[in-house]
Amino acid sequence: MPNIYDITMTVEESMQVWKNYEQKKPRISNVQNHDEGKPHESLLTMNTHTGTHVDAPLHMLAGGATIETITLERLVGPARVLDLTHVVDCITKDDLVPFAIQRGERLLFKTASSLSEEFLMDFPFLREDGAKYLADIGVGLIASDALGIERAQAEYPTHRTLMRNDVIIVEGVRLKDVEAGNYTLVIAPLKLTGIDAAPARAFLMA
Amino acid sequence: MPNIYDITMTVEESMQVWKNYEQKKPRISNVQNHDEGKPHESLLTMNTHTGTHVDAPLHMLAGGATIETITLERLVGPARVLDLTHVVDCITKDDLVPFAIQRGERLLFKTASSLSEEFLMDFPFLREDGAKYLADIGVGLIASDALGIERAQAEYPTHRTLMRNDVIIVEGVRLKDVEAGNYTLVIAPLKLTGIDAAPARAFLMA
Ligand SMILES: [Zn+2]
Ligand SMILES: [Zn+2]
Repeated sequence: MPNIYDITMTVEESMQVWKNYEQKKPRISNVQNHDEGKPHESLLTMNTHTGTHVDAPLHMLAGGATIETITLERLVGPARVLDLTHVVDCITKDDLVPFAIQRGERLLFKTASSLSEEFLMDFPFLREDGAKYLADIGVGLIASDALGIERAQAEYPTHRTLMRNDVIIVEGVRLKDVEAGNYTLVIAPLKLTGIDAAPARAFLMA
Repeated sequence: MPNIYDITMTVEESMQVWKNYEQKKPRISNVQNHDEGKPHESLLTMNTHTGTHVDAPLHMLAGGATIETITLERLVGPARVLDLTHVVDCITKDDLVPFAIQRGERLLFKTASSLSEEFLMDFPFLREDGAKYLADIGVGLIASDALGIERAQAEYPTHRTLMRNDVIIVEGVRLKDVEAGNYTLVIAPLKLTGIDAAPARAFLMA
């Protein structure tokens, strides 16, 4: 068996959420338990963009494709972790060119976000020119270790450029314990349908 | 790339739930959308035992181990689908002996439940003597295509026998389109912690 590296954020009430907004926090409550003479069961309430998750185009494009259109074949297979931990503020085309990225690649961006359990208000994000560069190459998937792949850009050009060019966006992976290099990636979202995103379990194998 | 067979139940409001109880149905609602000039986001509310899911020992054992103790290494690897579609009412030791089951195996039980989109009140379940037989062999994991691995037994002896013997229980897999035989299994539960279960994406590769 290969080694498995879990790259998923634990879903719990104390986890980091987007800009620390209270309404973005998941809620987990007990609905019955052994003290009542019943099996222990829980109720989970969460925004679909909580923790590690897959964005569907509908999230940022009116009338965009919904989450069930993203097949497991796109989410499972060879992938590469890029070391971008030196990047401050944003990831640009110039930051990406040295990696000689190829068509169809699945890429995971390891940045300062992987090293923080807190939400970084100034998290390094993929700037519009970087997104255009990757869309032109035709990469298959980009996984960001921040809870968003973009901030501080009006009209969300990074999301929209990637989505219009069929690049899958995964957000909130945890890469602290993973070295840059090649792996087999598994992104396994909950099997939701008709909506904008799905929380996922994510891991690498090597 | 291998072929991927998705064996997950779609999580939606119209899905089958345990005994058709209204309070077991998931709720999916919109929290913001493009008509409001905002990204489309959804809120998901679900019992942790909805659809395809992994049971932790806490579900049926007071003080039992919680879901984060079940590692991906246990949930990913070689597995075998057993054809039990001929079984009526319950799966007994006698039904299992012919398969020459070995220590450590991950097993998926294909029964009448895989052929129904409705919850079967009389779904074929693993009877206590079958559970004892599998626990004595020391299998690693059992995935049931019913929403429960057991019904109609006081004190839940099937769940408890398996849990006390470190056999992982997965419930609600969908095996209609899968032939009996050997595969690589991936069960990828949401990364929850401290509770009784987690909903999962599940697939086979061959
Ligand atoms: Zn998102
Ligand atoms: Zn259960």
